[in-house]
This record gives sequence, C-alpha cells and structure tokens, in this order.
Amino acid sequence: MLVSEKKIHVEWGHCDPLGIVYFPRYFEFFDACTNALFELAGWPKPELLRKFELAGIPLVDARARFLAPSRFGDTVLVKSSIAKWGASSFSVEHRLFKGDLLAVEGFETRVWTARATDTRGMHGTPVPREVLERFGALDGR
Amino acid sequence: MLVSEKKIHVEWGHCDPLGIVYFPRYFEFFDACTNALFELAGWPKPELLRKFELAGIPLVDARARFLAPSRFGDTVLVKSSIAKWGASSFSVEHRLFKGDLLAVEGFETRVWTARATDTRGMHGTPVPREVLERFGALDGR
Amino acid sequence: MLVSEKKIHVEWGHCDPLGIVYFPRYFEFFDACTNALFELAGWPKPELLRKFELAGIPLVDARARFLAPSRFGDTVLVKSSIAKWGASSFSVEHRLFKGDLLAVEGFETRVWTARATDTRGMHGTPVPREVLERFGALDGR
Amino acid sequence: MLVSEKKIHVEWGHCDPLGIVYFPRYFEFFDACTNALFELAGWPKPELLRKFELAGIPLVDARARFLAPSRFGDTVLVKSSIAKWGASSFSVEHRLFKGDLLAVEGFETRVWTARATDTRGMHGTPVPREVLERFGALDGR
Repeated sequence: MLVSEKKIHVEWGHCDPLGIVYFPRYFEFFDACTNALFELAGWPKPELLRKFELAGIPLVDARARFLAPSRFGDTVLVKSSIAKWGASSFSVEHRLFKGDLLAVEGFETRVWTARATDTRGMHGTPVPREVLERFGALDGR
Repeated sequence: MLVSEKKIHVEWGHCDPLGIVYFPRYFEFFDACTNALFELAGWPKPELLRKFELAGIPLVDARARFLAPSRFGDTVLVKSSIAKWGASSFSVEHRLFKGDLLAVEGFETRVWTARATDTRGMHGTPVPREVLERFGALDGR
Repeated sequence: MLVSEKKIHVEWGHCDPLGIVYFPRYFEFFDACTNALFELAGWPKPELLRKFELAGIPLVDARARFLAPSRFGDTVLVKSSIAKWGASSFSVEHRLFKGDLLAVEGFETRVWTARATDTRGMHGTPVPREVLERFGALDGR
Repeated sequence: MLVSEKKIHVEWGHCDPLGIVYFPRYFEFFDACTNALFELAGWPKPELLRKFELAGIPLVDARARFLAPSRFGDTVLVKSSIAKWGASSFSVEHRLFKGDLLAVEGFETRVWTARATDTRGMHGTPVPREVLERFGALDGR
C-alpha cells in the first residue's frame, strides 16, 4: 500500500488566538497531503486531472479528530493512504504526528469526477483500473 | 431550542479552481456560525470567554457532508444549534442551505475549556448550569 | 462617486496568536469589498464577468497600511471606491474603520482582463465606457 | 547580508477560480518567509519571541507587485532579506521566482514589538545590537 509522508511546518498564520493550529487549516493540510499521495503514485494533481480528464476529486465527506493541539513552530508529519476504493469514489486516511504522538486523524471521501461537456456539470465516473493497480488495490484479488 | 441563522455571501476567495467553495472554508463558516449561536444566546464569544473564564471552546471532532457545491456569488444560509450537551463538551449541528436545498451538513464536538493557571495547559471543565438553561437544555428535566 | 460600505465581523479564525487580525486576511476583506463595490454599481462579480466577457479583474499591485489592530469580536466598516481609472486598469481604495478610527488603508491596482480564446492566456482590455459612466468617471469631462 | 530561500509548492487550496494563486496567499507565503529568514539567522520565531521578550513583529505596511501568475502545481522559490533596519522597525523584501522569472515582489515593514506588562498594550522597542550584528547590518560602520 502506498503511504505518503508530508512534513508540515506550523506557521504563525496557521494559528488562532490560543496559539494553536486553527482547525480548518488541518483540512487544508490534509487536502495537500492527498495531492502528495497522488504525486507519490506518479501523478501530481495537475497531471492527474489532465491524464484522466477529471474536473477534480471533490469531497463528499470530511472528518477530523483532534487528539492534541499543535503550536506555532512545531513541525508535524502527516502519513496518508487510501483506506478504501469504491466504484467511483475513494477514502483517504491521514494521520498527523508530533514526534511519536498521533495528534490529528483525518478522513476524506472523494469522488472521481469527470469533466462534463457542459461547463458547469460534473459527475462521478469509475476509477480506472490503472489507478487501482498503481495503488496496489488489486493485489490478492 | 436556540437556532441561529447566519447568511454567508460566497466570495471569490472562498472558491477553488473548480469555481466552488474550497471545502476547508466550510469549516471556517461553521466556526463563525457557532460564535453566532452563542451571540444569539446573549454571549458574543469574547464575552463568553471572559464571563466563564474560558481559554476557548476548541474542537475534538469536526465533520462535514457535502451534498451540493456552492459557487462564487451564491448567498447561503446556515442554521446552527446545539445537538447535545455533555458534561464538559457539546455538539453543534450546522445545516447550510442554498435556497431550499440542504447543501452541506456540519458537525462539531467542542470542549468547554477553562483557562489554566499556567500559560500552556488547558483542560475541560463542566458546562455551567446557566449555559444549559439559556440554551433550553434543562427543559422537561 | 460610488462608495460602498461593507460591515465585517472579525471572527476567531481571522486572528493570530496575538489575538489580532492576521494581516493577509485584510487583503481578503478588501477583495470582497471590491466585489461589493461592483455589486453596488449594479454588477455582482459573477454577472460582471459574464456581461463584459472577463476572465477576472486580477491584481498587479496590492498594498495596505496598518494603523491600528482589530481584535476578535470587533465589527469594522470598510468604505471602498475607485480612486483612478486607467485605460485597461483601475485602482481601488479601501478605508477600514473601527468606530471613528481609521485602522487600515488598502490599495489595489487591478487589470480589466478579457477571457482569451485559448484556455490559459489572459490580457488586459479597455474598460468599457458603460463602466466608466456607471462609476461617474466621465463626469465633468 | 543574510538571504533565506524558501521553496513553496502551490497547492489547489491556494488557487482561485482562475486557477492562479489567490493574492492574499502571497502575503501568507511572505509572512512564513520572514520567519524562515529569522530561523536562518539562528532564531526560529517562537525562540525569537522568547529570547527578546517580544509580543511579535507585526506589520505596519505590506505591499506586493504581481508580475506573473503562479498556478496550481507550480513550485516557486522565495528569496528574502532585510532591506533596511530602522530604530524599532525593519523592512523585509521578498522576491518570488518561477524558475528564472521574477513573478512577485513583496515588501513588509514590521515593528520590533515588546510584550507590555498589561495584557493588551504593545509598543515598538529598539532592535537589539545582537540582532543587527547577526544580520550583518553593522558591517562597515
């Protein structure tokens, strides 16, 4: 299974008046980590969108559990992997560590979304076999 | 039960290259809506923190389900209420509407967090009876 | 001269560990205020882009002078107007007030940018006479 | 003269509906680059604040000139240095490059701000000789 690791430096601008990371920023971090995961698979997101003629991989569900705060100046490490592949969707799991401490867990469900012929429409489309193979999702089948 | 309503104008800067709201922004919206809910209860957040000697009301869990995208120029309405009171925590539910359409549902679990005597420590503390009363959480008990 | 007024509620998420508005947020505020100014002129930005076949009104220069901090819970008022029209560009001036106090001044120079026929190109194009008239820029000529 | 270099990966969430970096994000980038510059000088910002008993180094002026857009997927390099030291303030210059192309120039004027004894007050204070020496600002005097 592919697991990407992304180091993030907590900046002043990520933090709130408590001096800890403002929670919506974690979702920004995780979004960037999902891109890092696809880059590790060989497809940086711009190329991913071009190659598979996607509008994007928008979310239908996002969740995070905040176990410990991170502060300005911390460097954290996020480990990300695909937890599950559906027909036209997939789930990403993110674990953010401060040293050995699991500080935040993130979960995203995203839709493999084709570009529509009209400008505004978008619709889910089957995840290509090539993608499943690259992520090792067909192993053992 | 108190239900706050907050109108939000979707701005250019809220939107991503797909032209739809970048999903972490919804969590920012919901955070502001939680503050609006306490303001409706009579305690704008700065006053809430002062009056109850709180460091804040940080989240331990946040979730959103994205049912329909919102676009630049849309005006949306968020209805927020406390779904559940725990001993030292509470859950907030947000429903974001585009006209009659439920577009996003948000869920937050937050901790009623006292200021500690040392500068960095924080800990949960019981939600005061006055707060429960104000939100109608004691009705029928 | 058209002057728009936009009230902004300073949210927790706008503020940094000092408890004051994180300065890039002011540029977000001002961007939204420029949109409010065009809306006052009769063209909400999505309609502006459609009507005049624009890709956008991107900035070539942005500046702010921070005279006094704003804090979480403050409500501020931004007065915005077009300071100058060029051939294919224009300058917007924003003054952000806390009560009577001028707290931040913002300046933007933006380009009236046509949609190109190819997907990535963009170029400045003359500001239509209809726009200048609507903003009173031709008065006295 | 100390010059820090910081590589920034342009993420999906940094970009607007035009697919280019939303301009307030550049100010976030530059803020992080100023911190990187102090880290290069030997004082990561949290340590800087502790060591010199500062509340922060807030801005009184920020400006950027946008010469060329950056797009999702680009990696840019920001070179930052102190352009000028005043008695209790200093100016930082940032040059953001896409390959060899200078894409954005940023300018910040910041105040060396002591922690006040009361909780809300802040005031500028002389920049210590040790800081000027470390940045080579006394060379040739």
